Amino acid sequence: MTEKKKTTIVLFSGDYDKAMAAYIIANGAAAYDHEVTIFHTFWGLNALRKDETIQVKKSFMEKMFGKMMPRGAEKMGLSKMNFAGFGPKMIKDVMKKHNALPLSNLIEMAQEQDVKLVACTMTMDLLGLKEEELLDKIDYAGVAAYLADAENGNVNLFI
Amino acid sequence: MTEKKKTTIVLFSGDYDKAMAAYIIANGAAAYDHEVTIFHTFWGLNALRKDETIQVKKSFMEKMFGKMMPRGAEKMGLSKMNFAGFGPKMIKDVMKKHNALPLSNLIEMAQEQDVKLVACTMTMDLLGLKEEELLDKIDYAGVAAYLADAENGNVNLFI
Amino acid sequence: MTEKKKTTIVLFSGDYDKAMAAYIIANGAAAYDHEVTIFHTFWGLNALRKDETIQVKKSFMEKMFGKMMPRGAEKMGLSKMNFAGFGPKMIKDVMKKHNALPLSNLIEMAQEQDVKLVACTMTMDLLGLKEEELLDKIDYAGVAAYLADAENGNVNLFI
Repeated sequence: MTEKKKTTIVLFSGDYDKAMAAYIIANGAAAYDHEVTIFHTFWGLNALRKDETIQVKKSFMEKMFGKMMPRGAEKMGLSKMNFAGFGPKMIKDVMKKHNALPLSNLIEMAQEQDVKLVACTMTMDLLGLKEEELLDKIDYAGVAAYLADAENGNVNLFI
Repeated sequence: MTEKKKTTIVLFSGDYDKAMAAYIIANGAAAYDHEVTIFHTFWGLNALRKDETIQVKKSFMEKMFGKMMPRGAEKMGLSKMNFAGFGPKMIKDVMKKHNALPLSNLIEMAQEQDVKLVACTMTMDLLGLKEEELLDKIDYAGVAAYLADAENGNVNLFI
Repeated sequence: MTEKKKTTIVLFSGDYDKAMAAYIIANGAAAYDHEVTIFHTFWGLNALRKDETIQVKKSFMEKMFGKMMPRGAEKMGLSKMNFAGFGPKMIKDVMKKHNALPLSNLIEMAQEQDVKLVACTMTMDLLGLKEEELLDKIDYAGVAAYLADAENGNVNLFI
């Protein structure tokens, strides 16, 4: 009766390439039979947004944040060489040619492998994001839950 | 007689939002009774600067760095949506509305909880920052001290 | 017969200052007798490029990526205060004055200390980088090899 190894990732970044790195490591760790958690906080929450507009009651500021932030994984920009939005297109073309999975598929694969995807409730509150706007089968928690996971983690990363 | 869990954070980033994430995790871990260290290096040192101008002898380059870098936590910009300085104002308005603590208060809280705040002496030397310019009750150390802490850490993050 | 401590670093960033931080920690850990691995992925691979142009067969897109990305450690920009390329010059002048080693020397020192430098094969494939274009004595591996190292690591960082 050996205990499972544990990988936890804080995904803070809202960059497409950094989120890809997070999900590639997470999927790799899950394939290796680790228990894996990705805790999405700040701009990292954008990776979990549904790509359609969801009707929810919001304050003026919440609406502004909602409009300015990318709606879902495939709308995110690159951390480098974004070129006013052309960078992600280039990277995605190259990825397609090499049969690499786009971020949205990496997220699906993570869900199929039971990677625990957590949305940081403090950030949701601050930015005015509602549960209806995020993907299904997401967990909702705060920093205490993250720490409870991480303190027994073998691989803990902040991305 | 159980040993305390240990959290160490390298705060490299000079972004307000990333520093907030670092201090939220640090304060959470301290509340959880972890021994917590934040090692401030490179731009992360700006979080520890006093907000007033301190008279110290500096070379020309050191003066330039001193002027160009934000003087203290509340002068730092955002990693995303900085909008020439409007972003931090927006975030702080929203935070106020939700009774979230600004970074300077998170730092105070960390000090009250005995989080060890370390300033990287190599960076201070490079950028020409003097002890008089930083907050009181800061430790001063190099990478060796960081590693001695981190090699026994349960949660080690680079932010 | 005690086991060696282990430090693993994912170097994702292509910023000069972040790569410096990674190599300073790695060299420190190696001096402390840790087994150290730096796994270079995405833009972090640029730190391992040779600085001359190497003749290799590439597709159009691969040529474009090759031209746009910095050719080697000393061509990389800063994460903050890059000032259209003046920032790295300023930092390097200051480093010289303080006898701090530039990144290319930190990489050499890491190789002398047997830090394992790994190039992520998936990224090489995506961006069209060939082994001939990278420094000598580099290992080539994927995320599985990284995780095998990291799951037993004492200090695991994502930079």
